[in-house]
Amino acid sequence: MRFVLGVDVGGTNLVVAAVAADGSTLHALKSEATRPEEGSESVLHRMVTMAHAVMEETRRAIPKAEFIGAGVGAPGPLDTKRGVVLLTPNLGWVNLPLRDLVQQGISLPTAIDNDANCAVLGECWMGAGRGALNVIGITIGTGIGGGIVIDGRLYHGSSDSAGEIGHTTVEVNGRRCKCGNYGCLEAYASGPAIALRAVEAIEAGQPSRLPEYVNGALGKITAQTVYQAAHDGDELADEVVGDTAKFLGAGIANMINIFNPEIVVVFGGVTYAGERLFAPLRREVAKRAFKPAVAVCRIVPAELIGTAGVYGAARTFLDQRDARA
Amino acid sequence: MRFVLGVDVGGTNLVVAAVAADGSTLHALKSEATRPEEGSESVLHRMVTMAHAVMEETRRAIPKAEFIGAGVGAPGPLDTKRGVVLLTPNLGWVNLPLRDLVQQGISLPTAIDNDANCAVLGECWMGAGRGALNVIGITIGTGIGGGIVIDGRLYHGSSDSAGEIGHTTVEVNGRRCKCGNYGCLEAYASGPAIALRAVEAIEAGQPSRLPEYVNGALGKITAQTVYQAAHDGDELADEVVGDTAKFLGAGIANMINIFNPEIVVVFGGVTYAGERLFAPLRREVAKRAFKPAVAVCRIVPAELIGTAGVYGAARTFLDQRDARA
Repeated sequence: MRFVLGVDVGGTNLVVAAVAADGSTLHALKSEATRPEEGSESVLHRMVTMAHAVMEETRRAIPKAEFIGAGVGAPGPLDTKRGVVLLTPNLGWVNLPLRDLVQQGISLPTAIDNDANCAVLGECWMGAGRGALNVIGITIGTGIGGGIVIDGRLYHGSSDSAGEIGHTTVEVNGRRCKCGNYGCLEAYASGPAIALRAVEAIEAGQPSRLPEYVNGALGKITAQTVYQAAHDGDELADEVVGDTAKFLGAGIANMINIFNPEIVVVFGGVTYAGERLFAPLRREVAKRAFKPAVAVCRIVPAELIGTAGVYGAARTFLDQRDARA
Repeated sequence: MRFVLGVDVGGTNLVVAAVAADGSTLHALKSEATRPEEGSESVLHRMVTMAHAVMEETRRAIPKAEFIGAGVGAPGPLDTKRGVVLLTPNLGWVNLPLRDLVQQGISLPTAIDNDANCAVLGECWMGAGRGALNVIGITIGTGIGGGIVIDGRLYHGSSDSAGEIGHTTVEVNGRRCKCGNYGCLEAYASGPAIALRAVEAIEAGQPSRLPEYVNGALGKITAQTVYQAAHDGDELADEVVGDTAKFLGAGIANMINIFNPEIVVVFGGVTYAGERLFAPLRREVAKRAFKPAVAVCRIVPAELIGTAGVYGAARTFLDQRDARA
């Protein structure tokens, strides 16, 4: 049986697993803290050690296990063709030739891609987007990112920058975004933006039980706190979740009007809000997007929690190999 | 020499020409009023008559001229696979099997596509987008439409609805659009929206010489009037053009952040405003879009004035034939 190593390099965790080349199974999943403060050499060394451990364990379990390559998902921006990570503030990497370094460490042909791209490709291959050809993924966390799959393959654009959904404008004269612009989707619907909107409303005097969740320390309110309070019946929290649905709905409707995809997969903590978020989100999309495009498109939470990245990393190795062939 | 008939069915004009299969030349261009009020049978009959005339004329001029097929661009929405125009309010067509009707009339294999798609494909093939693989076209007139070329081919989406750039939201709680939503790009930057913003400012008492251009009949102000007055130094008109650049800039920056294309081609009367529009538009885009994406992207006016549609219609025949092969 042929396998591909899938490696997901996150700011918090390193995840490595053996993925069957047909996507059917995943073996020897290993995860450990990334500890970027120890430097890129240390992270790379541990990543390679984990990769060898995964291969050993898989070969013991499956006598005919054969590894044909590795795929690595890393925070971008990166140059997939040259295999170089250009800049990752979270990890402190600059112009790191990640692909060649991993390739040397594990003695297998290797491909790299953006982590958000890999997560979307993973869901498209074996998760919520299974069987679909045109899929948009939107990752909502500290920031908002995205990935675009067209005709079953990742779309990278002309300089590996496609899919910056978080920095599309939904309000021309709107809130200032960390990127320096005004009115980006991320400035309204990222985790920190959700918390900030709640805190601003409380500071403006709107009644809410949210402060009780954080012993009055408003700075400790997170998006999760807001979802929990909304679940518990807090009106302000419910309003904030509703507004989030509105902004996300506008952003997703834009993607549907432009791409006409079969599926939009939503990743991240925001999905914990469940139908409290998804129901008004779908209503907002139905209101804003074109009917023939809405009619063919499902909006769903991601399914491969914790493994979408390794599935997608493995798949990107296969796709990049095929594209070169 | 092999030729493809290119047919561009507009609400105002029917345009037909013979396009060399390598795009190198265009022959016997013919144009006449569409006169949709005479009914679809009449329009089709005249279209077929023009097509025969174009073939005759080309064959007389080029003894070995051989016609291998025809491409027709028509207002959408339409189903390219079945060759059916679903609904065109401008022409009054509903579920018209345009492809088969033209095919019977001219006895050549035929393909159809959306008119905006054809215009973008034409520019990509032989106009402003020559040589580029990833191109976004944005057509600005009574409405705002678009077309998306990825890897040299039109991208249609999952139900032929991709590219509805005009109805992407740039202001969540913004102006009401004809489509029923709020804050669509079209509600700010289409021809009628540009005129409306000028009229509203005049009615609110802003000084302007615009009324002199229409003998005081404000309802006669068009986007062209606004460009002309801005050119002549009218401050209000200049402000309206500047605001248009801002909204279009936000919409185009969104497309660049999502698609990371090499070229954005702008079609329509708005291009007559020239650098007065394009200079602030490019500044707004540079402010809003990601630097690595802005760095590789040119924003240019369309070049094939009056012929982009027939070039693209011919090319879509070739591409649809290749896709089936």
